[in-house]
Amino acid sequence: MNANSADIGLIGLAVMGQNLALNIADHGYTIAVYNRSSEKTAEFMARCREKEPSGERVLGFTDLKEFTQAIRRPRKIILLVKAGTPTDRIIETLLPHLEPGDIIVDGGNAHWMDTIRRDRELTERGFRFIGSGVSGGEVGARFGPSLMPGGSESAWAELEPIWRAIAAKVAPESGVPLEGAAPGKPVEGGVPCTAYIGPNGAGHYVKMVHNGIEYIDMQLICEAYWLMKHLLGLDAGAIGAIFREWNSGELSSYLIEITGDILGQKDPAGEGYLVDKVLDAAGQKGTGMWTATSALELGVPANSIAEAVFARTLSSLKEERVEASCVLKGPEIRLLSNAADTIEAIRRALYCSKICAYAQGFQLMSEAQKAYGWTLDFGTIAQIWRGGCIIRARFLQKITDAYAHDPGLKNLMLNPYFRDVLHEGQGRWRQTVTTAIQNGIPVPAFSSALAYFDGYRSAQLPANLLQAQRDYFGAHTYERTDQPRGKFFHLDWPAPDRPEKAV
Amino acid sequence: MNANSADIGLIGLAVMGQNLALNIADHGYTIAVYNRSSEKTAEFMARCREKEPSGERVLGFTDLKEFTQAIRRPRKIILLVKAGTPTDRIIETLLPHLEPGDIIVDGGNAHWMDTIRRDRELTERGFRFIGSGVSGGEVGARFGPSLMPGGSESAWAELEPIWRAIAAKVAPESGVPLEGAAPGKPVEGGVPCTAYIGPNGAGHYVKMVHNGIEYIDMQLICEAYWLMKHLLGLDAGAIGAIFREWNSGELSSYLIEITGDILGQKDPAGEGYLVDKVLDAAGQKGTGMWTATSALELGVPANSIAEAVFARTLSSLKEERVEASCVLKGPEIRLLSNAADTIEAIRRALYCSKICAYAQGFQLMSEAQKAYGWTLDFGTIAQIWRGGCIIRARFLQKITDAYAHDPGLKNLMLNPYFRDVLHEGQGRWRQTVTTAIQNGIPVPAFSSALAYFDGYRSAQLPANLLQAQRDYFGAHTYERTDQPRGKFFHLDWPAPDRPEKAV
Repeated sequence: MNANSADIGLIGLAVMGQNLALNIADHGYTIAVYNRSSEKTAEFMARCREKEPSGERVLGFTDLKEFTQAIRRPRKIILLVKAGTPTDRIIETLLPHLEPGDIIVDGGNAHWMDTIRRDRELTERGFRFIGSGVSGGEVGARFGPSLMPGGSESAWAELEPIWRAIAAKVAPESGVPLEGAAPGKPVEGGVPCTAYIGPNGAGHYVKMVHNGIEYIDMQLICEAYWLMKHLLGLDAGAIGAIFREWNSGELSSYLIEITGDILGQKDPAGEGYLVDKVLDAAGQKGTGMWTATSALELGVPANSIAEAVFARTLSSLKEERVEASCVLKGPEIRLLSNAADTIEAIRRALYCSKICAYAQGFQLMSEAQKAYGWTLDFGTIAQIWRGGCIIRARFLQKITDAYAHDPGLKNLMLNPYFRDVLHEGQGRWRQTVTTAIQNGIPVPAFSSALAYFDGYRSAQLPANLLQAQRDYFGAHTYERTDQPRGKFFHLDWPAPDRPEKAV
Repeated sequence: MNANSADIGLIGLAVMGQNLALNIADHGYTIAVYNRSSEKTAEFMARCREKEPSGERVLGFTDLKEFTQAIRRPRKIILLVKAGTPTDRIIETLLPHLEPGDIIVDGGNAHWMDTIRRDRELTERGFRFIGSGVSGGEVGARFGPSLMPGGSESAWAELEPIWRAIAAKVAPESGVPLEGAAPGKPVEGGVPCTAYIGPNGAGHYVKMVHNGIEYIDMQLICEAYWLMKHLLGLDAGAIGAIFREWNSGELSSYLIEITGDILGQKDPAGEGYLVDKVLDAAGQKGTGMWTATSALELGVPANSIAEAVFARTLSSLKEERVEASCVLKGPEIRLLSNAADTIEAIRRALYCSKICAYAQGFQLMSEAQKAYGWTLDFGTIAQIWRGGCIIRARFLQKITDAYAHDPGLKNLMLNPYFRDVLHEGQGRWRQTVTTAIQNGIPVPAFSSALAYFDGYRSAQLPANLLQAQRDYFGAHTYERTDQPRGKFFHLDWPAPDRPEKAV
């Protein structure tokens, strides 16, 4: 194979890497690929030869030096390997074969702090680095992901044409994926779901928040499903039909759509619906946990995102819950007769809670940019989430609109459209949560979102008592409502715990 | 001053260090003290001379070498300096003056991972290390704190007499602080609130969980206060009287007691009650955040502890909330007429939620011991929290009893006493939370605890749908209810997002 014959390189040929390479080849680029174990490369090259029309533009290598020699300078090499140490290891192996100015693109699910570190280290050594979130799973990688690149701006200028070519395309201002986006066929008129996010770890941070929002989006859907099942006694098929109906309205989104499909799916191994046979013990890969942790560290009240992580955690204690269910009793569930009204109340609760969840995610990014020195464009972020990724939804256009209308918007809930949805929906939302609580059905996502809404719109909260407690036992001081901020007071409280006042 | 004249040494003469030194001197020990800035030492020595009877047993030093020479070998030196880098810095300065076998005791609020690291590093260099949680604030340090030591067992054997002497004492099996625990007077018959917790970071971890529980304990009290204020229209003095009454019952605790005091406190600078003038923007020092973060990392559903942290965070956005309150509207609050019934419902909600909060804290310690290789004695931990510390409460004896009754208890809620409280209280608890929600009053702590209770006692949760979603878009696989655990399935779901099926 000739040197300089490839436009770009890719390392890591698990499914995501294979599919992204084919997506790049579909768009007319020649791509060199390499994998640490050569069997994987051979297997992928066979797939390219036998099944993939654009496979002819994929060049397979089992030698790292030959791989790097095949790529035109300055090289662009995408890594799709495991986050953490494996990523550092492959970078160290790769560097001796690169030249100053070459570009490494980490497309894995890296922790943003690792990306900040790698960006610094590689820049110091004369290389250029991009940390790019890649969302959309295997199918997205193959046919159009949402791509969130951060890092070197000059590197982005070189990567941009490829990233725009392979990204999902959505119709301007609608969020509907463009028709005719078939493999290998150029797409005209679509808005590609990618844009430069910011320096160093910004892209991976935004991808992480995407995942955190995905956690709460999914948990909200689960709670809606559970309420319809238990309060109305509907079976999975009937609930699936309701989700399909919801998908034609303001809730229209990929997750609502696949929920309709999933609930209607019959068990291939037996009678009835598959979902009724699936074990209710949720797994997680850690990005939701990172998001909630970041919110705690940055002091952002993203309580619903954290509740979604905890809900997965609690679900995973399956055996413990089964035992506990024999000891701890709740109220009998009373079936409701007003199905249409209940379904509409649940739909409103879902939409209102979803707005709160996104408000939390955007509030988090807003604090993160201050902490890490980025300048994020929230309208653009919402826009590139409109296609390709798991949380893609019609609703995201409303977020883009909200930031276009007011670039300094402090919280999504304050935007007139979202405010009105919340005002009109809150009665049904409160009805849904109280009905769940009265029937002993846990709705941590719905209820935490409502507590967030009620807390955020409270000019006063009981933290005055909390500050007085802190001053009482720890002399932490307090501020006063009738004095300027930043002026601190301490009272020499009576100390009932001193020995002379012991109980 | 003579070499070898001191029983123990202490570095760091902020208020906590001064008070702990005097507490040690009270119990007949001679203590050498040192501070990086010598003014502080001079100031403290003046306090010892002029105001403190046991000050004659405090030896002040401005030279680190002389300080270390004054302490009998093997030396025991307590550090009460700022957590983080300052602690590492003072250790490095100190080590050249020490000999193998000497003991360093870190009494600061260290992160447990730092304590694990310091224990390893110091052990490798031939020293012995204790990381000890010290709880109870300034007053506790002076007259009897709760002490949670972890680290070298042989070092603990040497420190134990002093730690037992200075710790708070409680009457056996009651949790009531002993009378007559006056400064300098030996205490007979009391159970000291200290015990060896476990290796390396165990003591600091348990202290951190104590603080996490303190966060939620305080938030629950704030919500109870807020509901009585807004649903019943009571003033601070009237609510204070209710807390004082509650303090004579099963809720009896330091935090309930001081809440009664605080709410009854008149404003020294004007008319009315002080609490009404205190600004509702809560501060935090980070240990609650560490606790919630650890829960997320270890996969423990400690949602209420996290909610308490987020509630502080949200409160701190004071100006933003005031602005939002003009945009986002909720229901009008309707005053309730049945005061006695409402107060009792709130009291039950508070107690039930408190049980859930402690259940989460103990569940967290239970996972942490697996992750970090400790063997924690939960009954003992509850016992040493019965006095000296901020969360001291009569209720803790019930936790000690619960673990005595069943050392393998998986969750506090499963213990018969707590189970019965939850069963009897849950109706009023649900009533309290639903009333709050209907009136637009945020109760994140009450409602998250209820979601935890309802989730934990649910044999089935909707995570079956969630697992199906994860398999659908990410091929993450699922388990089946009719197949053994550990057997994973994947369905080749229809893919509506492939181009040929594009919407």
